[in-house]
Amino acid sequence: MSGAREVVLTRYPAGAPSSDDFASRPSAVPEPAEGEALVRVTHLSMDPFPRMRMRPDSRVGPPMPLGRAVEGRGLGVVEESRDPSLKPGDLVAGELGWRTHAAVPAAGLEKLDRALGPPEKHLSVLGPSGLTAYFTAHVVGAPKPGETVLVAPAAGSVGSVAVQIARAAGARVVGVATGAQCAHLTGVLGCHDAADHRDVAAEVARACPDGVDLFIDGVGGEVHEAGVAALKPGGRAVLIGFISGYGEGPRPYGSMLPVLFKRLDVRGFLLADWRDRFPEGLERLSAWLADGSIRPVETVWEGLDQAPAAFASLFADARPGKQIVKVGE
Amino acid sequence: MSGAREVVLTRYPAGAPSSDDFASRPSAVPEPAEGEALVRVTHLSMDPFPRMRMRPDSRVGPPMPLGRAVEGRGLGVVEESRDPSLKPGDLVAGELGWRTHAAVPAAGLEKLDRALGPPEKHLSVLGPSGLTAYFTAHVVGAPKPGETVLVAPAAGSVGSVAVQIARAAGARVVGVATGAQCAHLTGVLGCHDAADHRDVAAEVARACPDGVDLFIDGVGGEVHEAGVAALKPGGRAVLIGFISGYGEGPRPYGSMLPVLFKRLDVRGFLLADWRDRFPEGLERLSAWLADGSIRPVETVWEGLDQAPAAFASLFADARPGKQIVKVGE
Repeated sequence: MSGAREVVLTRYPAGAPSSDDFASRPSAVPEPAEGEALVRVTHLSMDPFPRMRMRPDSRVGPPMPLGRAVEGRGLGVVEESRDPSLKPGDLVAGELGWRTHAAVPAAGLEKLDRALGPPEKHLSVLGPSGLTAYFTAHVVGAPKPGETVLVAPAAGSVGSVAVQIARAAGARVVGVATGAQCAHLTGVLGCHDAADHRDVAAEVARACPDGVDLFIDGVGGEVHEAGVAALKPGGRAVLIGFISGYGEGPRPYGSMLPVLFKRLDVRGFLLADWRDRFPEGLERLSAWLADGSIRPVETVWEGLDQAPAAFASLFADARPGKQIVKVGE
Repeated sequence: MSGAREVVLTRYPAGAPSSDDFASRPSAVPEPAEGEALVRVTHLSMDPFPRMRMRPDSRVGPPMPLGRAVEGRGLGVVEESRDPSLKPGDLVAGELGWRTHAAVPAAGLEKLDRALGPPEKHLSVLGPSGLTAYFTAHVVGAPKPGETVLVAPAAGSVGSVAVQIARAAGARVVGVATGAQCAHLTGVLGCHDAADHRDVAAEVARACPDGVDLFIDGVGGEVHEAGVAALKPGGRAVLIGFISGYGEGPRPYGSMLPVLFKRLDVRGFLLADWRDRFPEGLERLSAWLADGSIRPVETVWEGLDQAPAAFASLFADARPGKQIVKVGE
């Protein structure tokens, strides 16, 4: 079995990765250990996320080692198995790395169902990209007919599936892409309009004149700002990644990065929205006040002329609780 | 009726407001017009939000005029009514302004129920502060027993009620306040711990070693960053204001400001959380692929040696759809 090769990382990319950061070289076909399978790699999935570990100061796990096969997800056929769960000929996916032959623990491999579709579709529509599109554009985002859905980036692996799912749900779909890809969005993928990444704020505003109901954001940065700015009151955003910020550069979501990683649910609150339930609130508060469950905390300033000092105290040496100016009896 | 006075805004504050930005002066008792009531003001509510309009470049309505009574919410007793909905002696709240006597449209006044509690409580526990605390700490946030709730600011009008409501629900409550107010939180309001605003990131981390389940944030800025950083995966944040940013200064919520004003619902998405529903997703995707509802969009790069160029393309001249490297048959 000659001809085995691997592609290694030779240095950490500065900014956007380039081919010069990698080298291709011959390698040996590895021997599978007990519990491992030897996989002949047929396809590699190119995913942006590993870029975050291609830096000496990686914050999402150890830096990817230099001089070793690049880590990444792939698809292949089992050639030899030393684990009862797999047999030669099985189609599998997993962390195979950028190489022609990989010996990996069987427990880390996913056996794929050839009946679901052509093999390489397990890296796209039937893989993590398609599943992300399904759960965000169909289950979590759940666009209703007539709603405007903004997808960024729309021409990529997730977006190209998400826009088709949203369109099938009857939504008006606007995709964010760059230059000539915009024509691909409207001409091939069925987007109703496309917003050019190169002037994204103006383009989103133009393409979504009535605002956005659902924003599926895998970009972050100025695309994120433009999309959130275009959301209607009560609109929804689902953050799925931030390709704009995998390398160096400003924080792609400002203070929102933990929203993605911790799957936080963050929402704004305006009291006026709850007017219908004020009687309920007042009844509870009044009862808690009467039975001592809530102790009122107030600072009462005596006399109208104290109003400026009372107001100023809100921003400086604020005294406890509610600041009230007593103007008269 | 002599002795009527008003407090006017004499200049727009630079940074935190000070008493020197205002002046107190005698005024005439106004005559109510048809549909108006003359209100003898008894209490004024000090609220930070009007600070946003005390600037020539206000973005939340017209700048508050100089040389006129400061606008603000108050409480008073109707002295004379030229509207059938109100009669002398009624207790009312509304935009009365910083003055002893106000003639205002009856439609803008809220008639208060004296049976609910002492009059001035309608500006604190029974007013917008208490209602905000009730709906955020009880209804929207709904802390469960044992959960950790972080409230900022905790010593203020909303916070001082919210911490008591959260504590009554059985939560562990940590309040953010400054200096000596921290002792007030734990000694008087029943907070389990307090985090000092002056070193807020370290203090929140110290006071919430196991993380935060619910963060009620009325501050923004570095307090917001510290609170969100401390949230557990799946945690909740409710944004209710941003006192840190009502004047000049950096944007208090980064890209999250629209979350408050538009009551957006924003959440992060990680595919791994949906593993239990992968079969459902794959079934749907496979069917859509088979019936042509979804057209797969892929760029297949031929040969392992193309992997670096394919990967680099994700960050530069990305080609449409999923980027796949074909390593072998």
